Amino acid sequence: MNISVSRKAHFNAAHRLHNSNWSDEKNARVFGKCNNPNYHGHNYNLTVSVAGPVDSETGYVIDVKDLKDLIKTEVEDRFDHKNLNLDTEEFKNLNPTAENIAAVIWKLLREKLDERYNLKIRLYETERNFVECEG
Amino acid sequence: MNISVSRKAHFNAAHRLHNSNWSDEKNARVFGKCNNPNYHGHNYNLTVSVAGPVDSETGYVIDVKDLKDLIKTEVEDRFDHKNLNLDTEEFKNLNPTAENIAAVIWKLLREKLDERYNLKIRLYETERNFVECEG
Amino acid sequence: MNISVSRKAHFNAAHRLHNSNWSDEKNARVFGKCNNPNYHGHNYNLTVSVAGPVDSETGYVIDVKDLKDLIKTEVEDRFDHKNLNLDTEEFKNLNPTAENIAAVIWKLLREKLDERYNLKIRLYETERNFVECEG
Amino acid sequence: MNISVSRKAHFNAAHRLHNSNWSDEKNARVFGKCNNPNYHGHNYNLTVSVAGPVDSETGYVIDVKDLKDLIKTEVEDRFDHKNLNLDTEEFKNLNPTAENIAAVIWKLLREKLDERYNLKIRLYETERNFVECEG
Amino acid sequence: MNISVSRKAHFNAAHRLHNSNWSDEKNARVFGKCNNPNYHGHNYNLTVSVAGPVDSETGYVIDVKDLKDLIKTEVEDRFDHKNLNLDTEEFKNLNPTAENIAAVIWKLLREKLDERYNLKIRLYETERNFVECEG
Amino acid sequence: MNISVSRKAHFNAAHRLHNSNWSDEKNARVFGKCNNPNYHGHNYNLTVSVAGPVDSETGYVIDVKDLKDLIKTEVEDRFDHKNLNLDTEEFKNLNPTAENIAAVIWKLLREKLDERYNLKIRLYETERNFVECEG
Repeated sequence: MNISVSRKAHFNAAHRLHNSNWSDEKNARVFGKCNNPNYHGHNYNLTVSVAGPVDSETGYVIDVKDLKDLIKTEVEDRFDHKNLNLDTEEFKNLNPTAENIAAVIWKLLREKLDERYNLKIRLYETERNFVECEG
Repeated sequence: MNISVSRKAHFNAAHRLHNSNWSDEKNARVFGKCNNPNYHGHNYNLTVSVAGPVDSETGYVIDVKDLKDLIKTEVEDRFDHKNLNLDTEEFKNLNPTAENIAAVIWKLLREKLDERYNLKIRLYETERNFVECEG
Repeated sequence: MNISVSRKAHFNAAHRLHNSNWSDEKNARVFGKCNNPNYHGHNYNLTVSVAGPVDSETGYVIDVKDLKDLIKTEVEDRFDHKNLNLDTEEFKNLNPTAENIAAVIWKLLREKLDERYNLKIRLYETERNFVECEG
Repeated sequence: MNISVSRKAHFNAAHRLHNSNWSDEKNARVFGKCNNPNYHGHNYNLTVSVAGPVDSETGYVIDVKDLKDLIKTEVEDRFDHKNLNLDTEEFKNLNPTAENIAAVIWKLLREKLDERYNLKIRLYETERNFVECEG
Repeated sequence: MNISVSRKAHFNAAHRLHNSNWSDEKNARVFGKCNNPNYHGHNYNLTVSVAGPVDSETGYVIDVKDLKDLIKTEVEDRFDHKNLNLDTEEFKNLNPTAENIAAVIWKLLREKLDERYNLKIRLYETERNFVECEG
Repeated sequence: MNISVSRKAHFNAAHRLHNSNWSDEKNARVFGKCNNPNYHGHNYNLTVSVAGPVDSETGYVIDVKDLKDLIKTEVEDRFDHKNLNLDTEEFKNLNPTAENIAAVIWKLLREKLDERYNLKIRLYETERNFVECEG
């Protein structure tokens, strides 16, 4: 039997989809309204799922408080109330699509989590669109 | 790391569960209220998840607008505000259980999606019941 | 200070919007897809709110179990898994719009509730559309 | 008995809280992270509620399709995927707090709605914060 | 035009419905499973709505951060992860029904809020039952 | 193509996290507020997913009514409105963390389900924390 624990979090950010190697016309055609030069924004909702053995003394896979603190340090403090394109190192040269944001978050958390855990995240860009990363 | 993109959609339809090879008594016993001869209905909520490589130029697994349009053409235009038993080819001879509706939708989308993608869908018949298909 | 207690319930039904005094053309033009002759359907979600004094012995405005039973008898047993146009007395000659369904439910509950209570209902036809009745 | 019909909609936008009559220090102290010079953003969820008499021929207070179109023209086309501070006339000189955005939306819709209707809106800035306007 | 700002919060608590003036038989008959001597519990979800004039300098009815802090101090710190019957002064001699909990919260917040504000709260005991207080 | 059917259920319970082999200090340090000696509680939301072949005669993986009844008998009747530590056999000597509760539920259901089915459950302790078990 495989067990995982999940914790939800959220952050609010501005972004713009843009490929600087392309013309303005191509950017507008491919990214549509998401290419608006003055940015738009989202409430990003994040679910982080950590799978692993249950500790027999605590009954925990991971202490949810530790997971909550890890998400705060690695994700919320970094991206909340930021302009992803202008205010963050991660998206200076990486297009902040939901896929790329999710992959960046997955890697940031993966580096800090003990190797015994499997990690999966889900990132909602809107209530109707989300991305999942697992590895 | 495996990445997928998901899009939510919905359609409202009438249906009746019925097996024409069975007696009325057996249909009533097996399908209960869902066998009502005059039909009942649901708001079907659909989540379509497409997994595959992230395109390095766009940062997309798939353009969500393309996915939204595909769901509209293949699912919403076909089933929204319809009587599944009477108004659709797919359920003329197939009992429109949530399982069968989900399998039909999965096949309709699978035929139109590039082979490089994996496809998974979730179909809510009510807020308390849903079916998932993956392949 | 005014206090109310609310209880959620739900039923699934088929319906068709139609005015028998109108031509088919006018019905199609005014009601669009909702005029489909073979019906479509919805998961109707209902919230019933009852306001009144708090009983000092129980600490209740109304026993939620009694309210739940009342909704079951008056609403769910009457409309769940039914075709509103064909299977119910209430909508034989009344167009089953969300407004009319809500008004009928309000009256059915109002008749059974003690006069000391104020009654308000909210009826979701879909997650995006709802009607409220208060009196 | 009072009846209202409600419709949900949404738009995604960037904004910054700022009072140009104040020093940078005061803006930072009062508006905190929401004063970020490079903007942040939200998925704004909007519920528009219209109360009035039920038309005896249609069974409608208002045709929800008309209400949906009105919200699209007056709200979504104007604010979706925009930077509220930079891209809109309404917030060039008005701080785009949730209160002010809601009041602007209420006035835009009020001007277009027939006088016989009462209008109420709810605007979610996040899942945890919302504003209501009624008049 | 009337404007209000709302903030959501939550706390998790154990409770038991019991009237010490009644026999065990009457308590069991009236309160059913909620009378379990060893308690049961809920995730209480709270929405606090504050109505008043919009400050022309800030664009706020009330700073949501102040409202969040007030809810934390007056409600969450007092009731979160507590046994309402045993661990709180408020329900030592008051039956902790949803109605009574909501009324207590309303009074606690009312005392701390400026008189210019109107106050309304909604307390969910479960996703299907909630109480509203307004005054 | 793999198909599963899911059903949601819920129960409300009190619990306390505690390891009787540890000192009070260690219990307080590790479990924090969840170690409150007088218990606290939650609305537990459960999703049970059953995967298997679709029966060609019924169009069902499993009759959702049977699944609903199974969850009622094995889970709701056992845990609803109970103190998990005091009122249940399962948690007399097992710390009722979300992980342990989910594992117990998974085993209770697994024993009653036909071997041809795969079983997966998700248990929400709060709206922000959940555990998944699959085997």
